[in-house]
Amino acid sequence: MTDHLVVFTPSGRRGRFESGTTVLEAARRLGVDIDSVCGGRGICGRCQIEVSEGEHAKHAIVSAASHLSPVSEVERAYDADRGLAAGRRLGCTACVAGELVIDVPPESQVHRQVVRKEADAHPIEVNPVVRLHYVDVEEPDLATMSSDLSRLRAALEREWELSGLECDAHVLPGLQKTLRAGGWRVTVAVHDSAVITGVWPGLHETMLGIAFDIGSTTVAGHLCDLASGDVLASAGEMNPQIRFGEDLMSRVSYVMMNPGSEKELTRAVRGCLAKLTAELANDAGVSRDDILEITLVGNPIMHHLLLGLDPTELGGAPFALAIDEAVRRPATELGLPVHPGARAYVLPCIAGHVGADTAGVILSEGPYLGDEVNLIVDVGTNAEIVLGNRDQLLAASSPTGPAFEGAQISCGQRAAPGAIERVRIDPLTLEPRYRVIGSDIWSDDPAFAGTHVTGVCGSGIIEAIAELHLSGILTTDGTIDGALAARSPRIVADGRTFSYVLSDGEPELTITQNDVRQIQLAKAALHAGCTLLLERYGIERVDRIRLAGAFGNHIDPVYALVLGLIPDCDPAHVTSAGNAAGTGARIALLDRFARSEIEEVVRRVEKIETAVEPRFQELFVGAMAIPHDTDPYDRLRTVVTLPPRRVADAGESRARRRSRPDSTQRSPA
Amino acid sequence: MTDHLVVFTPSGRRGRFESGTTVLEAARRLGVDIDSVCGGRGICGRCQIEVSEGEHAKHAIVSAASHLSPVSEVERAYDADRGLAAGRRLGCTACVAGELVIDVPPESQVHRQVVRKEADAHPIEVNPVVRLHYVDVEEPDLATMSSDLSRLRAALEREWELSGLECDAHVLPGLQKTLRAGGWRVTVAVHDSAVITGVWPGLHETMLGIAFDIGSTTVAGHLCDLASGDVLASAGEMNPQIRFGEDLMSRVSYVMMNPGSEKELTRAVRGCLAKLTAELANDAGVSRDDILEITLVGNPIMHHLLLGLDPTELGGAPFALAIDEAVRRPATELGLPVHPGARAYVLPCIAGHVGADTAGVILSEGPYLGDEVNLIVDVGTNAEIVLGNRDQLLAASSPTGPAFEGAQISCGQRAAPGAIERVRIDPLTLEPRYRVIGSDIWSDDPAFAGTHVTGVCGSGIIEAIAELHLSGILTTDGTIDGALAARSPRIVADGRTFSYVLSDGEPELTITQNDVRQIQLAKAALHAGCTLLLERYGIERVDRIRLAGAFGNHIDPVYALVLGLIPDCDPAHVTSAGNAAGTGARIALLDRFARSEIEEVVRRVEKIETAVEPRFQELFVGAMAIPHDTDPYDRLRTVVTLPPRRVADAGESRARRRSRPDSTQRSPA
Repeated sequence: MTDHLVVFTPSGRRGRFESGTTVLEAARRLGVDIDSVCGGRGICGRCQIEVSEGEHAKHAIVSAASHLSPVSEVERAYDADRGLAAGRRLGCTACVAGELVIDVPPESQVHRQVVRKEADAHPIEVNPVVRLHYVDVEEPDLATMSSDLSRLRAALEREWELSGLECDAHVLPGLQKTLRAGGWRVTVAVHDSAVITGVWPGLHETMLGIAFDIGSTTVAGHLCDLASGDVLASAGEMNPQIRFGEDLMSRVSYVMMNPGSEKELTRAVRGCLAKLTAELANDAGVSRDDILEITLVGNPIMHHLLLGLDPTELGGAPFALAIDEAVRRPATELGLPVHPGARAYVLPCIAGHVGADTAGVILSEGPYLGDEVNLIVDVGTNAEIVLGNRDQLLAASSPTGPAFEGAQISCGQRAAPGAIERVRIDPLTLEPRYRVIGSDIWSDDPAFAGTHVTGVCGSGIIEAIAELHLSGILTTDGTIDGALAARSPRIVADGRTFSYVLSDGEPELTITQNDVRQIQLAKAALHAGCTLLLERYGIERVDRIRLAGAFGNHIDPVYALVLGLIPDCDPAHVTSAGNAAGTGARIALLDRFARSEIEEVVRRVEKIETAVEPRFQELFVGAMAIPHDTDPYDRLRTVVTLPPRRVADAGESRARRRSRPDSTQRSPA
Repeated sequence: MTDHLVVFTPSGRRGRFESGTTVLEAARRLGVDIDSVCGGRGICGRCQIEVSEGEHAKHAIVSAASHLSPVSEVERAYDADRGLAAGRRLGCTACVAGELVIDVPPESQVHRQVVRKEADAHPIEVNPVVRLHYVDVEEPDLATMSSDLSRLRAALEREWELSGLECDAHVLPGLQKTLRAGGWRVTVAVHDSAVITGVWPGLHETMLGIAFDIGSTTVAGHLCDLASGDVLASAGEMNPQIRFGEDLMSRVSYVMMNPGSEKELTRAVRGCLAKLTAELANDAGVSRDDILEITLVGNPIMHHLLLGLDPTELGGAPFALAIDEAVRRPATELGLPVHPGARAYVLPCIAGHVGADTAGVILSEGPYLGDEVNLIVDVGTNAEIVLGNRDQLLAASSPTGPAFEGAQISCGQRAAPGAIERVRIDPLTLEPRYRVIGSDIWSDDPAFAGTHVTGVCGSGIIEAIAELHLSGILTTDGTIDGALAARSPRIVADGRTFSYVLSDGEPELTITQNDVRQIQLAKAALHAGCTLLLERYGIERVDRIRLAGAFGNHIDPVYALVLGLIPDCDPAHVTSAGNAAGTGARIALLDRFARSEIEEVVRRVEKIETAVEPRFQELFVGAMAIPHDTDPYDRLRTVVTLPPRRVADAGESRARRRSRPDSTQRSPA
């Protein structure tokens, strides 16, 4: 026997091995990450590797395919059965026969990364909490008389070094038949290296999971392959709890007025999750029985109702949660039609108003990972605000009300096709043009004719009001200037106040003085919440602002700044985080370590309750003006074409900004 | 402040304490075992103590009631409410004020003992796996924003040093209301110092448990107070699985022939347990909701059916159990109508034929505790045999068949009122006399007239056949001697063989030649099993034989020896163990440490499978004769009045016995 130098890439790990050592064995001894379900029997094909041929000066090695043992019968059988790409070998049968540089492709690694589409988003590590293990179980005999479970455990310990495993009750009734059906070769699902949760005869390779994001309005699910991290299907459903109340507080009121009715709301949301599960499995063409893991996020009220907990205490101060830690349950306890051994993991809640959805946002955005100070805002009925970096994290909820979601706005509606989402007002003619969800055509384009316009969604209202302000129709105190009625028929009297007719079609869509007031209240609450956290943190300016959720996805950051929804920041550093809560659920689904990470982070988040902060009231009042005490106007000129300023207090604003050393240094991207 | 010497009895622990220290606090500092549910608030009254007055020379102390602080308001309130016996004080409010000898009565100790009625039985330690803890929980406030569960946990850690507790899912939905209903004072059930399993508003002191013994014929339950160890009620029910087959193997056959039907059998036994639970609670006048703990024993087939496991594999070699370790389940999973947090504990099985019932027998008898070598025999359809002492334990099952239970015997029946259980045959007249279950009157007493005789139970058959042998009617090879038909009308021809008419009433009860053969087979199997274990153990004689179960309860040890059911032993050391399996379940119910003890013992029991031991066959054949190779005849003369021997091989037998040095040394008690 001779020793040969073997180098693994991309890890760079190296060692000397005798001829005849399998590549998988060599990798294991060096701690190189190569996947295997079948434990080296040439069945699963997870351990595929390639030889990097040629002279590798860096490693002082000449590597050649011929330095591996010839292609074996096992590999030929695998190739015939399931196909083996040219150059690929099975690490469990190919043996070292000379110097080698072995490349482990990403799909052969247990721990891999899923790169996310969103800008600035860190990749997701794939390291699922459930693993599949193929084992050879000893047959029973009269001499030893150990139980089938004992021998299954012994095999898992012998072949996979898993010891002291517990076993789910549901596994037992089928265990004996499965062992015999598989000819004493079975695949075992082991959850968290601790519990046997499923057993299949022979080799079983599929393990799936679903990440659910339970919003008050919509429930979304992503079906993922737990081995690759790929999203196989996504689907959303209206939250059926809506029939008990549009917004969260009306659902809590329903429960308060109908004691015991939380059970109906629990049934409704669980039914929705079950329906989505079936839909996702159907869309992806997979079996629901291969779904072994579920993660869930939701605001505190959705969280409690999902778990069958009465949300009444969350309806009033001191907003006491029943439970705030992460919850682990058999998925079937939540009524999910999945494998009986599947587990559900509900992310932890942070406080009575800051739920598991915010934990998901934090996990997705990772503000605790770096030095940059991040402000993350997730706007729904309330706005959840998270501020900080690796040193300190603060969280609060600000009572914005539902105006940003289009509720309590005369022409408002939920973001859906037909809703106006973009608005421009000509500062000279005061004429508007707009665009609706589902179309790229502006209303002043002849091709727009016939487009059905149904209302204005949250981001549309924000733009409308910002444009009303930029075009001088709206004064700084938020009054629609009736004097302009003479200049434009768009400005019409409405009792003692005036409205702006955004669309004179059917239905007619007008922005009333009350609509402006609703948005002023909402934006003041959001801005005050952000500012309170900044003051607590002891900074005046953040490095980055991330807008999460559907609202954050639709809103143009420039208008959020114009209207003063968020504190002043370089517009280039104000970006949408997409559905960060749902992404957080997906991270927790794919990466077991992300769970302990977010649980630890949530424990050290400092919670600020805006309701008992006198300073919040002051900030709130101060933030009512449009724009209030910050002025992004000049910078905006570089981003959108704006008319000359007409507001009076620009000098004061600029003076304030000079006192902030870095605020004018950066240019927008 | 002055220090005073305080001595606690019966522990003898002593220490010096400042005036004003409560007795409970002093006891805790010294590690003296005093119970408390309320944590020293003067509510539960568990910590009652007495002052031992007088001069205690041994302790160099003069103790007086006046050396305790005066009776407090709290004690007066407790006395008015619940009564406090003269001389009793509450340890949590009574304070040290001078030298004291404090007596802690047994009922104030957490760990106490239940003395058993059976001779030679070790007392049961009371140390339940579930404990009740009264706590003051902090109210929620906006400043901290922790969840109700977090604050409950904090209270348990602060007041009871219980940390890292998990919480049952079913506790959460009611938690917030319970905390508020109790004014933030609640009682918490904590299972195994690890899981919160129940929460009650205010003080809750009752915790109950049931020990179930699931026999193939009857299911018995004992409802116990987990704090005192007292049995509050006992009840038994026919096992409703009987409709699927009288004996175990016919039930397994039913399942084999009707795949999936194990579910019906599972439902049947669980239904029976549920019915018994309700009955026991009703009999004791307690609430089912206070039942927090369940233990269960049963043979392997009953064990598997209880757990919803198909027993098919137990119907044939190699008799593979699905699971042999102890099983812990929520009691509600077994369909028991008890507290939702109640846990069920099923004792471990030993081998395919030696079940959790035998584990119960071992726990009850404790052969592993001492040096004496015990032989424990539990006769049912099979006989489970355990042999050994603290150094080594062997177990086997011997296929006796159901003859000892009265099955496959022409006149046989189950032990029930009306069944003959005692038989004597006059060796001169060959006339029988007998007694039936439920009556103390022998059949030759005129008062017996009119007694309904229905059949012969197992012990009756044993005595009948032993008496047939002792009276010379039965030859050593087990033939009914037809020559005696001339001497007695009791001996009648029956085809080619002869029968003995035991009772000529209605129904006529005769012992046929076939009946004798059945008993010969059964006793040969039992004796061969015992002898096999003795040989394996390397001894010829045991110190003690214990006969467990209903059969063991009824049988006269002398007749068991006469017939050679069990190996030779001093008859004084052959005793009934009562329902040892059920007692084992009760021990596991009351004493948490007994569980790890029996699990550890079961793991090291050496299992002997008689079916694959050629030596068993030899022993079996050798044990067919009546009596076979041992002869307790002479010793029996001192116990019962016997006629002179007539069998021929007595000399040989005696010669053998001389070679055993201690066999004739002992005299019967």
